[in-house]
Amino acid sequence: MFRKTIMISTSHEGEIVNLTERVAVVVRESAVREGQVSLFVQHSTAALTTIEYEPGVLADLTRALAVLAPDSAEYAHNSRWGDGNGRSHVKAALVGQSLDIPVASGKLCCGTWQQVVLLELDVNAGRKRCIVCTVTGE
Amino acid sequence: MFRKTIMISTSHEGEIVNLTERVAVVVRESAVREGQVSLFVQHSTAALTTIEYEPGVLADLTRALAVLAPDSAEYAHNSRWGDGNGRSHVKAALVGQSLDIPVASGKLCCGTWQQVVLLELDVNAGRKRCIVCTVTGE
Amino acid sequence: MFRKTIMISTSHEGEIVNLTERVAVVVRESAVREGQVSLFVQHSTAALTTIEYEPGVLADLTRALAVLAPDSAEYAHNSRWGDGNGRSHVKAALVGQSLDIPVASGKLCCGTWQQVVLLELDVNAGRKRCIVCTVTGE
Repeated sequence: MFRKTIMISTSHEGEIVNLTERVAVVVRESAVREGQVSLFVQHSTAALTTIEYEPGVLADLTRALAVLAPDSAEYAHNSRWGDGNGRSHVKAALVGQSLDIPVASGKLCCGTWQQVVLLELDVNAGRKRCIVCTVTGE
Repeated sequence: MFRKTIMISTSHEGEIVNLTERVAVVVRESAVREGQVSLFVQHSTAALTTIEYEPGVLADLTRALAVLAPDSAEYAHNSRWGDGNGRSHVKAALVGQSLDIPVASGKLCCGTWQQVVLLELDVNAGRKRCIVCTVTGE
Repeated sequence: MFRKTIMISTSHEGEIVNLTERVAVVVRESAVREGQVSLFVQHSTAALTTIEYEPGVLADLTRALAVLAPDSAEYAHNSRWGDGNGRSHVKAALVGQSLDIPVASGKLCCGTWQQVVLLELDVNAGRKRCIVCTVTGE
């Protein structure tokens, strides 16, 4: 087992960071040829998924998340704590925090149009995000 | 590999159970120091995710799930089977049934505000829920 | 570790394929008795989840996904590329591409009403879909 944490600085709500190359580097460092990498984001207002990293798709995803948790809705979290990030928590819990990707011949087995991304969902800018990568295999 | 099933009795639709401490106990019993724990809920009307376990956020999440699958919608599942839990199946399939969390120094690597939760989504009360925990590592 | 890729030919948008028996076959071939199987779909317009494989529920899930990404919405992805599958990418990113299922006594530990499914979300028919299965354990 090989473990490394990727640290990302984000700058604004709705930012979508392409992690693919950074995860590939961790896999190379692990020297694992056949196995998998598990990713976990250690935050309740950020999420992980895979998507085609193309500005149109990313904008479409952002709009879909706003259907679930619109900016204009009233959030019980905001009323209680005055945080303003009620929508961020809701979106993050629905998208999810963990993701496993197979590794073959030392490479990530993603599809051609499939990238690994971090969704920065918090309304408060300037966050540091930790993604724990655990590589297992031979 | 160490395996244990956590059993939870739920009492109502929309109940959100904080599993964090129970999962942490399973990790301690496993004696694994560096590795991960995979969770899987063996039901089609319950789900797993991580969230800040705070009543406001939990209420906000419940409302967002009702956007996807409103109480008032007509469900083909209900028409066919008279079950009444069409919305429960839909929500569960979207949130997901599996979740991996890294373990370091024998502890769950969750963020400060990040708890592991079971969502009871079924309309029929008094369910017993099984969450299979698989701990791997050294 | 044992790895095999399941190949599925799909025929239309919204098709939901029951993978349970095919995954169970891979687990049997692996000869793993106690462990788990990780599934990963290598595409950005398809997704994996678990659900009761019953036509009513499947129709209800399809409708809920259309709340997030309606056919009638305008998609930035479509405007840029003329693809028409903006909604497919959005739905896939929200449902997710990876899923872990425990294996006990050589069998998948799914619940009675819980099947493993592939969601074909692309508007373009006649796709070949690859699901990488990684079985680990003893």
